[in-house]
Amino acid sequence: MFVLPKSHTLTKMMQMSCKFATSLPFYKPFSSSLSPSHNFPSFSVSATSGTCKLTWDHVLHISESKHVTQQDPCSYLHGYFQKVQLCNRGSDKQSEFLPFVIEGNVVGFIHNRFVEHLRGFSDVFVFPKDGGPFGDCVSLHPLLKTADERTSAVGYVIEHLGEEHIPGIRNELYPVKSSFDKPIFFSLERAAAPYFGIKAYGIHMSGYVELDGEKHLWIAKRSHSKSTYPGMLDHLVAGGLPHGIDCQENVVKECEEEAGIPRSISIKAKPVGAVSYMDIDGYRYKRDVLFCYDLILPESFVPKNEDGEVESFKLIPVKQVAEVIRTTQFFKPNCAIVIIDFLFRHGYISPENHGYLNLLRSLREGDCS
Amino acid sequence: MFVLPKSHTLTKMMQMSCKFATSLPFYKPFSSSLSPSHNFPSFSVSATSGTCKLTWDHVLHISESKHVTQQDPCSYLHGYFQKVQLCNRGSDKQSEFLPFVIEGNVVGFIHNRFVEHLRGFSDVFVFPKDGGPFGDCVSLHPLLKTADERTSAVGYVIEHLGEEHIPGIRNELYPVKSSFDKPIFFSLERAAAPYFGIKAYGIHMSGYVELDGEKHLWIAKRSHSKSTYPGMLDHLVAGGLPHGIDCQENVVKECEEEAGIPRSISIKAKPVGAVSYMDIDGYRYKRDVLFCYDLILPESFVPKNEDGEVESFKLIPVKQVAEVIRTTQFFKPNCAIVIIDFLFRHGYISPENHGYLNLLRSLREGDCS
Repeated sequence: MFVLPKSHTLTKMMQMSCKFATSLPFYKPFSSSLSPSHNFPSFSVSATSGTCKLTWDHVLHISESKHVTQQDPCSYLHGYFQKVQLCNRGSDKQSEFLPFVIEGNVVGFIHNRFVEHLRGFSDVFVFPKDGGPFGDCVSLHPLLKTADERTSAVGYVIEHLGEEHIPGIRNELYPVKSSFDKPIFFSLERAAAPYFGIKAYGIHMSGYVELDGEKHLWIAKRSHSKSTYPGMLDHLVAGGLPHGIDCQENVVKECEEEAGIPRSISIKAKPVGAVSYMDIDGYRYKRDVLFCYDLILPESFVPKNEDGEVESFKLIPVKQVAEVIRTTQFFKPNCAIVIIDFLFRHGYISPENHGYLNLLRSLREGDCS
Repeated sequence: MFVLPKSHTLTKMMQMSCKFATSLPFYKPFSSSLSPSHNFPSFSVSATSGTCKLTWDHVLHISESKHVTQQDPCSYLHGYFQKVQLCNRGSDKQSEFLPFVIEGNVVGFIHNRFVEHLRGFSDVFVFPKDGGPFGDCVSLHPLLKTADERTSAVGYVIEHLGEEHIPGIRNELYPVKSSFDKPIFFSLERAAAPYFGIKAYGIHMSGYVELDGEKHLWIAKRSHSKSTYPGMLDHLVAGGLPHGIDCQENVVKECEEEAGIPRSISIKAKPVGAVSYMDIDGYRYKRDVLFCYDLILPESFVPKNEDGEVESFKLIPVKQVAEVIRTTQFFKPNCAIVIIDFLFRHGYISPENHGYLNLLRSLREGDCS
């Protein structure tokens, strides 16, 4: 770790925190034109090697700063808007994508250049030309009639394209459907979902404790060995929704694996709504819908990660979590959206702030169906 | 009151409850094609005069019925959808309305036949012909430059049109603006808002008590002397947002007037989001945005109406309120939307029920800005 001079500004700290995140999907540093409108507090960092690692001290320093608690109702929500925007990039690039249509239903969107990788697999993919209701589009070969046949054929293509074209293959299948309650057409490798613009569903759970009348959220810090968003702040529990498991069961399963929360407690997690976003980044078109859950935890409970994906946990007052979300990019971007939803539902954001309704609507910017 | 035979079905009870509501704006009985899909519980009513009045006994009978607690995940949310639809009628009739444009901003929509009533007032209203970005539209005379001049000129027209064309004049002014945070162009009589398709903002507060770990909502029954929705069930506290008062202050004010909740308690009401709907009914185009608030009340608190608008209050377990919303039309329709939002936020509706995301989205069907 290298030593930074004291009194380094937060802006620099954020540039540093960007450094370990630039290779990540979703990540986009604030444009410099946005920075000056922020009154970032001054900040000192001690680090002793070449790698800048976010620590709980950094987080708490931000969140406790009195500087940022002065609210200007005209600009206060700006920092939240920026975090929502980080998950909703590239809407002007939608025309670069072709609809992926199965049995007359649009199930995804594929970049016109990525389509070129699929043209060689003419017994799997077909490319109907305009005329139809969807114009030029991509579809599956009509001989692939059952879900199993389609899953297997598309799986073969993905295996063939490999890490070069679809990095991060997990051997985890996501259901492909036009909306959440609709039948499944086939199942697709999770890492391939954004390349096919498939809607992906997940669950995000906010675990909190009420101490002396003040709500505190349990926050996780992701392991540095994670391939995505290493070292960044995260929800207590979150996970994709694979084929064949319902939301409540998935919450219970992820609670156990990610935070060591026993079923006797996790079964009390409450569904409280959903958020959605759509993010275009190169060939990737992410269309995520996250079902949000709240769980009140016993004061005595301390989370314990069981799958090695979390470095540590910390219990932080909600007001301080809100400041971290608003003034930094320490959180994994989609967690910020779920926490902003939490802030709305628990009364931490009020209509007296300009942009209240716009921010509320922005939490479901994606196709939330 | 007339005596109904015992074992009358709820369907008949609902037809009766329709009877006292048919003259009301918003009210539309369920179409008979919808009814058979419901397993309404059998129900007996004792009444002794020609007027059928909803009583708390009716309400509790519905809400306690074991019959309706059997959940079929495929159809369970249907009853909620119907209630949301009652506030979102006539979207196919939007083409009958002309945009009402001020300084290049669409602030409302006026029915093309209602426009005829305005043509005589050529020093107040002008009627630009297509060509412009809004096509045919209605606007204010360019000589009306200030908000005061516009308020006064339009007020004169409304007074002139009178109860015949704009029933229920209240002498209460609503701000006219393109969205919540935007500047006010002028102020308009509240009763005229739907005839000009102005967006109207309000606050709705759910007041609840937690008893033995179970949440109970305080429900109001509207006075029979109210001109709108007499005798129907209502929120503990709700009100339109007049010009010049912010949401939090309005909550405190309405808490005092409608339920006798002192400021020391009402100041703790928390903003928890917003719902919106758009309803076309003849010449009326309602575009309402309701800011939702939650207030946890002390167990010992009993609401007391101060303005004569409420007949009585009752504390009812949330699960039972949910059944009343789902299976009857006893609630004032827009309260149903706010309570469904409450049910979502507090975990009473789960993604395992078909239509979860659709119902969630439907709570902001109107222009929520």
